[in-house]
Amino acid sequence: MRKDDRLDAGPIRPGEHLGKVPIRVRYAETDAQAVVYHSNYFVYFEVGRTDWMLQTGIPYSAVEERGFGLFIAEGHIRYLKSARYDDELIVETRLTELRTRSCTFHYCIRKDGEEETLVEGWTALVCLGPDGKVTPLPSDLIDAMRATAAL
Amino acid sequence: MRKDDRLDAGPIRPGEHLGKVPIRVRYAETDAQAVVYHSNYFVYFEVGRTDWMLQTGIPYSAVEERGFGLFIAEGHIRYLKSARYDDELIVETRLTELRTRSCTFHYCIRKDGEEETLVEGWTALVCLGPDGKVTPLPSDLIDAMRATAAL
Amino acid sequence: MRKDDRLDAGPIRPGEHLGKVPIRVRYAETDAQAVVYHSNYFVYFEVGRTDWMLQTGIPYSAVEERGFGLFIAEGHIRYLKSARYDDELIVETRLTELRTRSCTFHYCIRKDGEEETLVEGWTALVCLGPDGKVTPLPSDLIDAMRATAAL
Amino acid sequence: MRKDDRLDAGPIRPGEHLGKVPIRVRYAETDAQAVVYHSNYFVYFEVGRTDWMLQTGIPYSAVEERGFGLFIAEGHIRYLKSARYDDELIVETRLTELRTRSCTFHYCIRKDGEEETLVEGWTALVCLGPDGKVTPLPSDLIDAMRATAAL
Repeated sequence: MRKDDRLDAGPIRPGEHLGKVPIRVRYAETDAQAVVYHSNYFVYFEVGRTDWMLQTGIPYSAVEERGFGLFIAEGHIRYLKSARYDDELIVETRLTELRTRSCTFHYCIRKDGEEETLVEGWTALVCLGPDGKVTPLPSDLIDAMRATAAL
Repeated sequence: MRKDDRLDAGPIRPGEHLGKVPIRVRYAETDAQAVVYHSNYFVYFEVGRTDWMLQTGIPYSAVEERGFGLFIAEGHIRYLKSARYDDELIVETRLTELRTRSCTFHYCIRKDGEEETLVEGWTALVCLGPDGKVTPLPSDLIDAMRATAAL
Repeated sequence: MRKDDRLDAGPIRPGEHLGKVPIRVRYAETDAQAVVYHSNYFVYFEVGRTDWMLQTGIPYSAVEERGFGLFIAEGHIRYLKSARYDDELIVETRLTELRTRSCTFHYCIRKDGEEETLVEGWTALVCLGPDGKVTPLPSDLIDAMRATAAL
Repeated sequence: MRKDDRLDAGPIRPGEHLGKVPIRVRYAETDAQAVVYHSNYFVYFEVGRTDWMLQTGIPYSAVEERGFGLFIAEGHIRYLKSARYDDELIVETRLTELRTRSCTFHYCIRKDGEEETLVEGWTALVCLGPDGKVTPLPSDLIDAMRATAAL
């Protein structure tokens, strides 16, 4: 997907801004191994991304109201240590790539007050327009995202 | 909600038709108590309901394509015995009430080949039209549902 | 289930203490109707209950560490109005019944800053011991729950 | 993780056996974009893996009963095209690596009767023993997996 992006929204210095959002593990998110079921970390990533977007001043819900959507195109995840019910986690989110039609976020999840990484990963998102086709991100959103990344 | 239904789509003899659909418990559906997390049975109920609707000849996806939607208005559930990972369950579904603007399904979940009920419950659904307001169910859908219930 | 409880933990004045916990709707929790999928409100109820239990000084995770478990035995839910992605909700939780072997919580979900109820319901939970059989709740837990309910 | 595996369970010719399992998209699995929420494909992968393991003659539930567990250590996913409510999908599963303490499965999801890939990915799993430490997979399981891969 990202290879098809011919226009580049210009350089950002990745990871300068680090979003942090707390998550308390819900019972519903655990599985019979008594740990957080692995796919749920992508939901936690989404919580981190939603919060990061909120800090741009253009919440993702506003992007959708304008008929655009960011769809996950690719993702990667590494599980280093388990989280359990009622654990208080921190999701750290960085924008690591910003292109005309796509962007990539990296995430790191750890327990509140601890340094150790439990889970890390990234997701690449592509922008679709009202017609369902790949389209450039709205320019005010690109500006806001670049500004937030540089905070 | 159901009290607001002034028009009645006419009597059906409830429970004459019993839909049955198999479900194999996924790991994702278990929790740290090593049993199916309680809210997931409503998802199983939905699988039963989807299958029941399919037998009317008007799949629920077709209802939505015409701009209508059935929304859950009320539900009740009783948990008698736990299901676990990889259990092969049967969801039995009956239409127990059919009114002009709403309908109610009852469900019974048991292990395949066993009589004992694990979980039982019901959900009442109300029909919303393209404008998001409560509206009569499409008449062909009512006919098809009544015919299926009488099979 | 509750009918089988012969011993009663004694009267509480229900609803004197009201737990409140905020929830921000995640994209993962929505469905193709663009509203919160109905079963997820039981997860929100659980978040309210977890928070209520935390206020007793005996978090539910500690109950499980001692080999006991509270299992949902019955539940009821009414949907009055939809919640959507990114909505900021409040889950209000009350303990409405406390018996020797079971307890019941009532929940009310509304948008932060608004009075209108979106969803309301209750769940009845039964206590199982290390042997998997119905057993009295630990006495210190009953005391803590009664004290919290009376706050 | 896989780099820490010093012992190798020996060569398999990857992908010779292809497991196929059907999945019908549930409403609960969709999101407000009216497509399957991205993390749910990892649940579908798990359904494919469970079915593949079942074909070895040693279902994963039996592995857990013996005190062992396979934990996801790493995963990757690519989304090429969306699936929607009620779509009938096929999950194709291949064992692509089998080592002493870990294994990797690849997955391909497409619509029933169509060639086009909607989603593809892989997950690497590591074996933990009753003590929660990385341990070799049970030898009969390795034999059964290698035999199944060569079918």
